[in-house]
Parts: sequence; structure tokens; C-alpha cells
Amino acid sequence: MSSNIEIKHIEKSKIESVDFNNLPFGSVFSDHMLVCDYKDGKWQTPVIEPYAPISLDPSAKIFHYGQSIFEGMKAYKDAEGNTLLFRPLDNCKRLNKSAERLVIPQIPEDVFMDGLKALLKLDEAWIPKNDGSSLYIRPFMFASGNGFHASPANAYKLIICTAPSGAYFAGKVKVLIEEKYARAANGGVGFAKAGGNYAAQFYPTQLAIEKGYNQVIWTDDNTHEYIEEAGAMNIFIRINDTLITSPTSDRILDGITRKSVIQIAEDMNIDVEVRKISVSEVIAAAQSGSLKEMFGAGTAAVISPIAGFGYQGTDYDLPELDKPFAGTLKKAITDIQTNKAEDPYGWRVVVK
Amino acid sequence: MSSNIEIKHIEKSKIESVDFNNLPFGSVFSDHMLVCDYKDGKWQTPVIEPYAPISLDPSAKIFHYGQSIFEGMKAYKDAEGNTLLFRPLDNCKRLNKSAERLVIPQIPEDVFMDGLKALLKLDEAWIPKNDGSSLYIRPFMFASGNGFHASPANAYKLIICTAPSGAYFAGKVKVLIEEKYARAANGGVGFAKAGGNYAAQFYPTQLAIEKGYNQVIWTDDNTHEYIEEAGAMNIFIRINDTLITSPTSDRILDGITRKSVIQIAEDMNIDVEVRKISVSEVIAAAQSGSLKEMFGAGTAAVISPIAGFGYQGTDYDLPELDKPFAGTLKKAITDIQTNKAEDPYGWRVVVK
Repeated sequence: MSSNIEIKHIEKSKIESVDFNNLPFGSVFSDHMLVCDYKDGKWQTPVIEPYAPISLDPSAKIFHYGQSIFEGMKAYKDAEGNTLLFRPLDNCKRLNKSAERLVIPQIPEDVFMDGLKALLKLDEAWIPKNDGSSLYIRPFMFASGNGFHASPANAYKLIICTAPSGAYFAGKVKVLIEEKYARAANGGVGFAKAGGNYAAQFYPTQLAIEKGYNQVIWTDDNTHEYIEEAGAMNIFIRINDTLITSPTSDRILDGITRKSVIQIAEDMNIDVEVRKISVSEVIAAAQSGSLKEMFGAGTAAVISPIAGFGYQGTDYDLPELDKPFAGTLKKAITDIQTNKAEDPYGWRVVVK
Repeated sequence: MSSNIEIKHIEKSKIESVDFNNLPFGSVFSDHMLVCDYKDGKWQTPVIEPYAPISLDPSAKIFHYGQSIFEGMKAYKDAEGNTLLFRPLDNCKRLNKSAERLVIPQIPEDVFMDGLKALLKLDEAWIPKNDGSSLYIRPFMFASGNGFHASPANAYKLIICTAPSGAYFAGKVKVLIEEKYARAANGGVGFAKAGGNYAAQFYPTQLAIEKGYNQVIWTDDNTHEYIEEAGAMNIFIRINDTLITSPTSDRILDGITRKSVIQIAEDMNIDVEVRKISVSEVIAAAQSGSLKEMFGAGTAAVISPIAGFGYQGTDYDLPELDKPFAGTLKKAITDIQTNKAEDPYGWRVVVK
């Protein structure tokens, strides 16, 4: 590990105050955070310091021009007490892909990985051991440079915070296929984990929640005829025994859980099709009975089974299956993540 | 004026350190700012306090989910020493329209207007008197509530800062008509002054700057055939003696300078058409010689004449006219703003 990290220890840990048997999602924070500043044209020495408020000038561009990106990751403990990460370099690479599109300077992979590992070692006691819980990791980067000119900032911060967390969703979710609003433009930033992509979804999601749904399934902004993603998750649709998901594009996030699900499903000899899927195909399948399952895939929820969906004022229920793909795939992926199963892919990384 | 504003005065003004004859745009800040917090389901008492850094939890949703909106306004001094605003209530109404789309609580108009006026009275000495300079006003609202759950925050801040400023652009600009990237989706947040809309433009704009242009002219994300706006400005195109601008939509900002230009031009008996305008129509007009002018309209630059544009690898120059509409309209609007002309519209507001 690089020695080039400054560490400022907390005076007294807060860990005694946390009930690890009743963890919410992402609202209890560990003792420390990693902060790395970009200024004068380069990334400075990363500092691990007590989790504490950040101070910014009111003209900092994060407040005005939305230059912000993030990642979601999880750390687990296995039975031997090892700290495990899942495909962490993929998160770093995606963070840098988002950074490029948002004109935020890219973070060197070794700075990111060494800083993350040092943070996890220092706050190791914060990693939950209960099944279904994990240490949610939130790396984020934003414009800290000042001024009201609508142009990229000259200073940025990378921060990595961690939060011991329980499940993101409790149980199955009911979704609404969107017909009016859209998440992403062709040639826009939908593929990036940009902050603005999330705020843009809140209003249509709120309308869907008022109608009794949990989440929106986004469709393309031009025709609203093709299924894209769920905003916080990619979407998989099972018709008969074929699992279908939309191809990634400049509008759709290249989800790490998504691509892991595709790989595992293929290796289980499930027929996987990565192709455009139209709303009318889904409706026809629901009507004929060939629509067996829908589920979301993402780091926070891992795999989130969908109970049913609404479209054009009609609700469609999905069948209760004995052995749904969702359950089989969720077990396979979480077993790899938590070292309960072999990892033939080399996805699991032990933090040493 | 409402007395319900708390005022904390600065100990010593910084104004002596400012060279009002050499003002940059939006990077010198006045002594005070207005801060109003939304928490426990309601807006709290606004506080005018010394301009100083803001402290936020690292999990504050502004850093992660892009819930941020802003406005741009200007205050002027007239020859009699009155402090003047231009259509300020329109900015407040648009701020609230943006707020609704981004699920940020709307600010009561009297809180906004009374707070703004109190701030301008306190920092009256910061309003530049030189021609072409003004006090740029930046109201902004953002999610200050905490947590990594991708949902609207439970706390927000409205802040109004001011910055004595010179011109936004120096001279004419050269623009590139965009063929690949897009600013806004149908059913998206393009009509709102959302932070994320600006960050999304930086990368394509940087590519345009590298090719020798100053700004991008956005086209629709589906066909790239229709002119939309310039991101920081609305666009006007003069073909022969007709002034054409795109209609507002959910993708295009309802600019206050834009609608003022339309009104003034119509009252000057200029033929104004608010309609979709295709790139091919502009190219054909450029080739036939009927394309006389293009200019941007927005608060920061007021009216920004365009010297020429690039499209599909070809550059098109615009003619130098003796009496361009851009100059006539800019004079008319700034004369109203600065009380050098009558204001038949009731747009000018004196701060008392």
C-alpha cells in the first residue's frame, strides 16, 4: 500500500452508539472519511480524517453548475474476518468515465484504491457482519472551485465516506413505466453517475409514488417505447426462460451488478439477450402469460424483484414463482461477494 | 418591507479592496449574503449575514443527487442614485418553477423579494455605477439535508449572493451548432435552471472551444435538426428583416431577456416569429445571403452578437451591419434597465 496518505485519527469512536442489528440504509456514518483535493492542476496528498462537515465558499461551483459524480460500492466481512470488496476497480474506472464527461479531473487508480483500502482498514470495525447488511461505500467528486462563471471549476474534491447499512428496499417493488417524463437525452449524461441525473428523476418518481408505485421504469425520451433503466437500477425482464436487458448506451448506466448478473446467468446456461426491449413486447408477454419476472439490479439493492408494473392506467401483476431467476442470481452474486462461494471470475478483492 | 429578517453585520467591509474600474464577472463578492433555511417542513426566518463559507455534512444531498437550482439577476444604479432591478418577480417565479421540477420547496415570493431588497439596501455601495457594469445577483437553492438514499432531501437552503461584475463576454462570439451531444431530453429538466444542466454542457463546450468556438448552439437530441438554445443564452436568428427564435418547451429555458427582446422588437415593428427553426433553414439563409444576424440573449450577457458559426466542418461568417438589431435591442433593453429611457412595460423596479 502506498504510504502517501496522511491519517488524522478521530479522538473517540462513535461506534458504541450504533445498533448494528437495526441499520438503516446510508444514514449512519463511520468514524473517518478520505478527502483528496485537486488544485493547482493536480491531485494533492489524500488525507483520512474524522467524518465532519465540509466548508465551501457560497460561490463553489457544486452549488451552481452541478459538477458532481459518485459511485456506490459495498464492503463485506467473510466468516474468517476478511474485508471484501466487489470489483472495486470497475467503480474507479466508471468514476473516471463520469469524470471525463463532467469535465472533472480523473483520479489515478492507485490513489483511489490505496485510499479506499486504508480507509477500510482504519474503520474495519464498522463493517457489519449480519447477513444482508454491508458497509456501503460512497466515493464522490465535486467542483469546489469558486465563481459564478458557467464553466468548469479549477478545484475539486474526491471524498470517500462509508455507512454501515441494512437493505435498500424492503421486499418487492411495484414500478410504473414512464410515458411522459424522461431521464436522459441522446448525447447527454445518462451513462454517467452524475448528481443531476438523480435530481431530475425525483419529481416523476414522486408522482409515481403518489399513484402507489415505488419506482419509475424509464423509457427513451423520443418515443417512450423502449425500456431503459430504473434510475437507481438496471432492469432485467424474463420472458419464458429468456432474460432480457437493454444494451448500455449514452443514456443507460453501465451497471456493475448488471454485467455481473449477465455473466453469472450465462454461466448458469440461462438464455440472456442484451437488446432493445419495447414496452409493447412486455405488455404482450404479460397478457399472454409469458412474462415471468422483472427485477432491478444495482449495488445498493443488489437484485430487487418487481411484484408488478403499471402502464397507461393498467396494472400488471407478475406471477409468484417457486424458483425465480431473481432469487437464484441474487444468491449467486451475494455468495461470491461474501465468500460463501468460489469466485471463478476474480471479482472479489480482499483488503489487506 | 417585512421586518422578519435577521441582520448580522460584517465587522469591516471589504469594499476598499475592490477596483470597480476593472471588475471581472462573478468572482468578487459583496460583504453580505442572505441565507434562508428550510427544515421541519417550513422556511425559517431569513438571515442576512457576512459572506462566508457554508458548512455541510459530507452526506448532504447536494453533493450526491444534484438537487440545485439558481437564478441570475442584476441590480443597477441610475443617475439619481436609485437602485434598480429588472423584472425581479419573474426570476422568483422561475426559481419556483425550477424548484417544483427538482422537488425543492418553493420560496414564498414576499420572502424572496423582501430578502433581496434588504440585502441590496445593506450592500448598496457594492452596486457599480460604470456603464456596462452591474451588481450580478445569484439566488440559489440546494439540498442541505443528509443521507445516501436517492430521494429528495428534508432540508434546503436558499442563498442570495451578489457580485459587482463587468461584462460576461468581451466582443462577439463564434458558435458551433452541435451535431452529437445534447443539452436536454424531452420530458427532462432543460426548462429549469438546474445545476446539472450546466455541468452536462461543459464537455461538449470544451470540445467546441478546442476547435476555436466560444459556445455551443444546442439542437434537439433526437434529430439535431432544430435549433434550441445556447445553454447560457436563448438564441435569435435574423433572416432578412425577420427575427426568429425557438418556442420555449420542456427543453428550453423561458429566458427573461428573451421575452423582453421579443416584446421590445415587436413594439419597434420588427417582424418576430416564435417558431421552430431548422439548421438547414439557417444554412440555406447563410448561403443565399439572407442570414443577417444571430445573437444570444440572457441576463449575464444581455445581448451577445454572434460573429459566425460552424456546422459540419464548415464555418459561416455573418455580415457586419451598420445598424444591427442586436445593437438596437441591447440599447433599448439596457436603457430601460438603467433608467435612461421610459419603461412602458413596468419592468423596472426601484428598491426602496
